[in-house]
Amino acid sequence: MSYITWLRKGIAVFFEYDTPRIVHIESKKVGVTSRFVQACILSYIIGYVIVYQRGYQQFDPVESAVTTKLKAYTNFTDDEMAGVPPEWRYLYRRVWDVTDYVVPATQNNAFFVITNIIITPNQNQSTCPEDPKIAGSICDPRQNQCHEGESLPLGHGVNTGRCVQAQPSHGEEPQDKEVFTCEILAWCPLEFDQQPLKDRALLAASANFTVLIKNQIEFPLYEKRRSNILESSNSTYLQSCLYDQETDPFCPVFKLGTIVRLANETYEDIAINGAVMSIIIHWDCNLDHDFMSRCVPIYKFRRLDSADAKIAPGYNFRFAEYYKTGKRTLFKAYGILFVLDVQGRAGKFSFIPFFINLGAGLALLSIATIICDIFVLYVMRDRQIYRDKKYLMVKGSDAFSVYREMDNSEDDDGQQGPAIESENSRAND
Amino acid sequence: MSYITWLRKGIAVFFEYDTPRIVHIESKKVGVTSRFVQACILSYIIGYVIVYQRGYQQFDPVESAVTTKLKAYTNFTDDEMAGVPPEWRYLYRRVWDVTDYVVPATQNNAFFVITNIIITPNQNQSTCPEDPKIAGSICDPRQNQCHEGESLPLGHGVNTGRCVQAQPSHGEEPQDKEVFTCEILAWCPLEFDQQPLKDRALLAASANFTVLIKNQIEFPLYEKRRSNILESSNSTYLQSCLYDQETDPFCPVFKLGTIVRLANETYEDIAINGAVMSIIIHWDCNLDHDFMSRCVPIYKFRRLDSADAKIAPGYNFRFAEYYKTGKRTLFKAYGILFVLDVQGRAGKFSFIPFFINLGAGLALLSIATIICDIFVLYVMRDRQIYRDKKYLMVKGSDAFSVYREMDNSEDDDGQQGPAIESENSRAND
Amino acid sequence: MSYITWLRKGIAVFFEYDTPRIVHIESKKVGVTSRFVQACILSYIIGYVIVYQRGYQQFDPVESAVTTKLKAYTNFTDDEMAGVPPEWRYLYRRVWDVTDYVVPATQNNAFFVITNIIITPNQNQSTCPEDPKIAGSICDPRQNQCHEGESLPLGHGVNTGRCVQAQPSHGEEPQDKEVFTCEILAWCPLEFDQQPLKDRALLAASANFTVLIKNQIEFPLYEKRRSNILESSNSTYLQSCLYDQETDPFCPVFKLGTIVRLANETYEDIAINGAVMSIIIHWDCNLDHDFMSRCVPIYKFRRLDSADAKIAPGYNFRFAEYYKTGKRTLFKAYGILFVLDVQGRAGKFSFIPFFINLGAGLALLSIATIICDIFVLYVMRDRQIYRDKKYLMVKGSDAFSVYREMDNSEDDDGQQGPAIESENSRAND
Repeated sequence: MSYITWLRKGIAVFFEYDTPRIVHIESKKVGVTSRFVQACILSYIIGYVIVYQRGYQQFDPVESAVTTKLKAYTNFTDDEMAGVPPEWRYLYRRVWDVTDYVVPATQNNAFFVITNIIITPNQNQSTCPEDPKIAGSICDPRQNQCHEGESLPLGHGVNTGRCVQAQPSHGEEPQDKEVFTCEILAWCPLEFDQQPLKDRALLAASANFTVLIKNQIEFPLYEKRRSNILESSNSTYLQSCLYDQETDPFCPVFKLGTIVRLANETYEDIAINGAVMSIIIHWDCNLDHDFMSRCVPIYKFRRLDSADAKIAPGYNFRFAEYYKTGKRTLFKAYGILFVLDVQGRAGKFSFIPFFINLGAGLALLSIATIICDIFVLYVMRDRQIYRDKKYLMVKGSDAFSVYREMDNSEDDDGQQGPAIESENSRAND
Repeated sequence: MSYITWLRKGIAVFFEYDTPRIVHIESKKVGVTSRFVQACILSYIIGYVIVYQRGYQQFDPVESAVTTKLKAYTNFTDDEMAGVPPEWRYLYRRVWDVTDYVVPATQNNAFFVITNIIITPNQNQSTCPEDPKIAGSICDPRQNQCHEGESLPLGHGVNTGRCVQAQPSHGEEPQDKEVFTCEILAWCPLEFDQQPLKDRALLAASANFTVLIKNQIEFPLYEKRRSNILESSNSTYLQSCLYDQETDPFCPVFKLGTIVRLANETYEDIAINGAVMSIIIHWDCNLDHDFMSRCVPIYKFRRLDSADAKIAPGYNFRFAEYYKTGKRTLFKAYGILFVLDVQGRAGKFSFIPFFINLGAGLALLSIATIICDIFVLYVMRDRQIYRDKKYLMVKGSDAFSVYREMDNSEDDDGQQGPAIESENSRAND
Repeated sequence: MSYITWLRKGIAVFFEYDTPRIVHIESKKVGVTSRFVQACILSYIIGYVIVYQRGYQQFDPVESAVTTKLKAYTNFTDDEMAGVPPEWRYLYRRVWDVTDYVVPATQNNAFFVITNIIITPNQNQSTCPEDPKIAGSICDPRQNQCHEGESLPLGHGVNTGRCVQAQPSHGEEPQDKEVFTCEILAWCPLEFDQQPLKDRALLAASANFTVLIKNQIEFPLYEKRRSNILESSNSTYLQSCLYDQETDPFCPVFKLGTIVRLANETYEDIAINGAVMSIIIHWDCNLDHDFMSRCVPIYKFRRLDSADAKIAPGYNFRFAEYYKTGKRTLFKAYGILFVLDVQGRAGKFSFIPFFINLGAGLALLSIATIICDIFVLYVMRDRQIYRDKKYLMVKGSDAFSVYREMDNSEDDDGQQGPAIESENSRAND
């Protein structure tokens, strides 16, 4: 062919259009079946993927900063400390303010509030008898049972080698004279690891403490910024309001007691041994609506740690204040660790995700055809007719020879052969 | 049929091939339309999904560790402290080194630098008059207005019940003798919550502090590791260099002032009340290129908290140093919390995502056919011809009877019966 | 047409079914090719996407809380401190318990253990000569080289303007009398930044410390909760057990040495300069199986920081204890920061993801057809026959005229001629 012909053929490609040939079957049974399957798939695609899942939107995850500010303080009167041994009370008889009960002073995306505490004052590096409660600490002064330099797995220090008489802990009635334990080098006196009030928490009053949570969020992709404090609310309101799920769901000031209650826990109980609570600030924003008025936070509260842990239940840790004199005051702080968790996303209409979901949906529609074809070609009475129409038989030069030897079996007759003839034969009736 | 026949039929399945029958239309209008739609979809798939979005790659999110090290210190000369009441100056007249102004000493993925501070020395548990500025603290000594054990919502402590004369705070001119407030049990003397320098920050010099950021990243899937410190840079360079967006974008040493400036904020302003800044280290790596030379970090800086918060603007917290004598020094620290945020991913060619995107793309191509079919079958002048070609009409035995009673309406005539004839005509050659 | 007809036509739509007409080719070559390609795609979809990737499940990411508790303590005997200058030993000769070597006392999702430390006692705000090792600190008393108020980039304080004789640091042999440096206002005496034991860590014994890791997880979507402590294990077991990859993979108590060893590091080495280690708790749960018995944690350990950093290798920070007297004790703590990282997801059978993956898969199957069509229509010997069968040629009224002038080229004859006739045939009725 001439060059010009090739060229024209090349151009011709742009003026062609291929579309699949369709067999259009009129049949109540098949029609209903196929329409039904299509309806299911379409309603799933449009109803669930596009509308419910907002499949027409592009999403941008939230970026945020959370800062918190605790307020309030508490005081112990002697009658509150009924359970505390008198010689200890001076330790606890004080006003506790934020600086005292928030330890450490600042944490990123979390804050810890002391609810119960064991104070061991005036510890210094010296020697004292090991706590008799520690397994293996009891010794007999007549035998050489305490080996210098050794230490017990759960002990408090290193053996000096001597075996001395055990001392009663703070606020314990003097023990039986006969108890002897190994002397150890450690921070003495040893901590008497028992909560001052047996059945309740020392700082249970912290349930009334309030925390101001400031959460500034941003959706970088859409360059939208806002905070969890509504435009509408003025500062006088903010200083007086308290969060309440029903009446005041957008006030950024929370009572610790409320947080715990909304997580279905009892403050009095968890205050004793401590716990880990999660404050979830959830932003699910639809930027196709107004940002400031419609994109608002939802607060959720959950207890994260296990209420019935087999070992070391609750949440506590030790810290100390060290003094120049080499002494320290040891604190074992039980309390609630509040973890702030900001979740969310913003969606805005975008062609790309819309088409992707549409494409995937159309692909699924082919399932309808597959199902119905099976029904039409193998189940229905007229299946033979439909097969003839759907399939145009072509025998390649290297066709597999299964049919040859059974040409006259009427069962297969229709399906092949003279696939072409069979076309006529039927066409003619 | 014999067993052997069934077997052969089974084998035959592997020697068959089904391909849809295509109606090939030669028409400028349709051709151009379809090619155009196809071009759009293809360019989207190839251009955007495959190439731009690197749809041919499998991605692995970054895992990282960040450690920081601050350097430098500052000193207050008396003329700097012009605004500070003389009797306070001894508190601030000192050299502040890293240990003093980084509180707490270490945080995971963040560090806090004090930029402004209020120091209240020698607080101890005692009684003092409530601050007159607190709403409801004013009382009249002749009436019994202060109820023992009660406390004000925003007060500092618990009422002793007495109504005493208010004291001037540190550095305030003595007040009118007639002011009386309730006496409270609290940490006294009370904090005078006012910044030493009215209009500027005490440690504004911190703008010149430098921080070394070490970020070691890993892509576990591809077992690639590197740090934000380039192979090329030697340690002498590292000790002297300073990050600069243009001239020195890979130096891991940052001036705090630079960080704030690149976030479009003024250090002097935010230093007064504090702020939360985000340092984003972004790694977007293409492992189909060289790892060490091409996979380099990009630093972005943003202010996270709200510049114009309605309540408690900025960022500050209180902490205290406790002394054996039961006294404490209270610090209210304003400062900048720098949050380190490592983002990124590594992509490498992989067949699976490549084919998934390709498949989704091909599915979308069917949209082109749908659009053009509508155009061809309902819009164009020759639509009737095209319909006849595209559709092969088949009437099932249970066909719905709409056509029967109007067999001779030429409109439908073409759509069916003849369709069959058209089959013969072809069959016959 | 009458309204009733329109109505019936409308109803008729629900009783129709469209299915593509298929060309059924019997040919060994083509058949095998297509079946092979289909097999590949199907095995990928079913084998990889559905089964291996659990494509039939909907996944919910894990939410978790981690708390840790360290145990054990250590003691220095004088012979251990062979390397420490005698006049220093009193600083280190003590029992270190948890409160001493875990700094800060609590961190969210991380804990830091001191392994090596430099202590500088009795620092106070005063003047002392700058460290001669600092570049630019050396001065000549006869010249005025130290300018008041200035300071060196890496120096410790601010020049007083005097040039004085340098002092030997703690435990250093007295220096050459002739060394003079600028006097500075700073925390004096300056820290002598050199590790007490040259070649080993002071608290290397911390390798034997144990940490209890409590990890409570939740899959909110499926409302499943559990902790990393197995139901089966009782508290006596928990108090005695130690994690071991082979023998005891579910014990929540870890020896620090074991963690480091499993990360392929040597504790003795990293203890000297510190490091950042990651403890990954991996939960990959299949909720189609039993939750409690089959959904168990896998612990992985990795070193996060770079072992051979060019600058400031390892991990350390400074903190201080401040005393009422204005003095402080400065600590430079080297140690290991253990970062806890909980990963994982729970999958449960769900129709939606199942169908999405299926749909995408079916879309991919069209690739098989495309490949084989190319083979059939352009490669094979009988391609001409197949083309005739696959394509039904239709010439639109606005067809591009490439063919007209070569009507009799047999090459194209087959492709259209008949098509045209078929056109006529219809045209004629």
